[in-house]
Amino acid sequence: MEFSSKLLEDAVNEVSQLPGIGKRTALRLVLHLLRQPASQTHDLATSLVRLKDTIKYCKDCHSISDAEQCDICANPSRDGEVICVVEDIRDVMAIESTAQFKGRYHVLGGKISPIEGVGPQDLTIEALIERLKSGSIKELIFAMSSTMEGDTTNFYIYRQLEGMDIKTSTIARGIAVGDELEYADEVTLGRSILNRIPFENSMKTQ
Amino acid sequence: MEFSSKLLEDAVNEVSQLPGIGKRTALRLVLHLLRQPASQTHDLATSLVRLKDTIKYCKDCHSISDAEQCDICANPSRDGEVICVVEDIRDVMAIESTAQFKGRYHVLGGKISPIEGVGPQDLTIEALIERLKSGSIKELIFAMSSTMEGDTTNFYIYRQLEGMDIKTSTIARGIAVGDELEYADEVTLGRSILNRIPFENSMKTQ
Repeated sequence: MEFSSKLLEDAVNEVSQLPGIGKRTALRLVLHLLRQPASQTHDLATSLVRLKDTIKYCKDCHSISDAEQCDICANPSRDGEVICVVEDIRDVMAIESTAQFKGRYHVLGGKISPIEGVGPQDLTIEALIERLKSGSIKELIFAMSSTMEGDTTNFYIYRQLEGMDIKTSTIARGIAVGDELEYADEVTLGRSILNRIPFENSMKTQ
Repeated sequence: MEFSSKLLEDAVNEVSQLPGIGKRTALRLVLHLLRQPASQTHDLATSLVRLKDTIKYCKDCHSISDAEQCDICANPSRDGEVICVVEDIRDVMAIESTAQFKGRYHVLGGKISPIEGVGPQDLTIEALIERLKSGSIKELIFAMSSTMEGDTTNFYIYRQLEGMDIKTSTIARGIAVGDELEYADEVTLGRSILNRIPFENSMKTQ
């Protein structure tokens, strides 16, 4: 791609560094910004820089937060005895939107992945263990993605819990609500049979 | 989507103003930036603001340019008698990459579209007419998209040329090189038969 303007080329190159955005899309986005009022570009740039420069992570759960402690950890009506371990803030948002979980979170910041060069020390696992040692926590819920990396991360943490009196669980895997059996993959269907639950429990509504 | 951080929410809202980027994608992009060194966010923000604030448009062809006159218009070896009318700089880049056109361009900055509220006065049509009246231009090539809006824009400009001694042409429409006839749409195939060219001409190589 040959540019007639160095400024344009720089902007396109920077935008195309974002994941899933190629040069063509980057050019389309940049040309769009050029057609909009200058304030839009300024607001976009300012909000990104301000977020990056002043971002804080909650001292307890390591989720993104504007204060030293996030709203969930600071909320006294949340159950401090149950902690749900998730990969990133998107998972917190997803679980919060169900309104089914009243405990607190621990955001690992990723999952163990030797291929991508992410080891346990790159995550907030040590902080989690410290948190657990503090004593008041009774249950840990693993809510990682059901992938090789997710399972590895769960297992790595699980092994660190030896000797601690902490109950562990993982979120249920099974057929999604509203899905047809015939289209489910065998692994999921197999697991959902192995981990069947009492029928009365399935009648519980939100 | 409920955010635990106002800063994060602001950034996601700004990014999701870009065309084709929803809230989820915006969140993914913003979280990606948070995992990268601060310099990446700063470079991205700086390049966008610098482009928007210091952008120049070539005084002749109205293409994006770092100088008062773009490289193509400033190049004395380009044919000043032939002007190719295009919608935006992406079309200039596309035609330049063919290395088949030795003339100059005129960038309209869009096309006439009553639905989107774009009228002739929003484009650089008046500047084009002024340029044509200056006298040295002999041929105008319309290279707009083959859509209702493109055709309208072509026809609007064509009508302004009355009384001027200027040859007009449009780029050829037809079956793309390498395409199979059976998969071509009827309109394109029909036009390519009506506008057939002498066989010897088709043997011309690049």
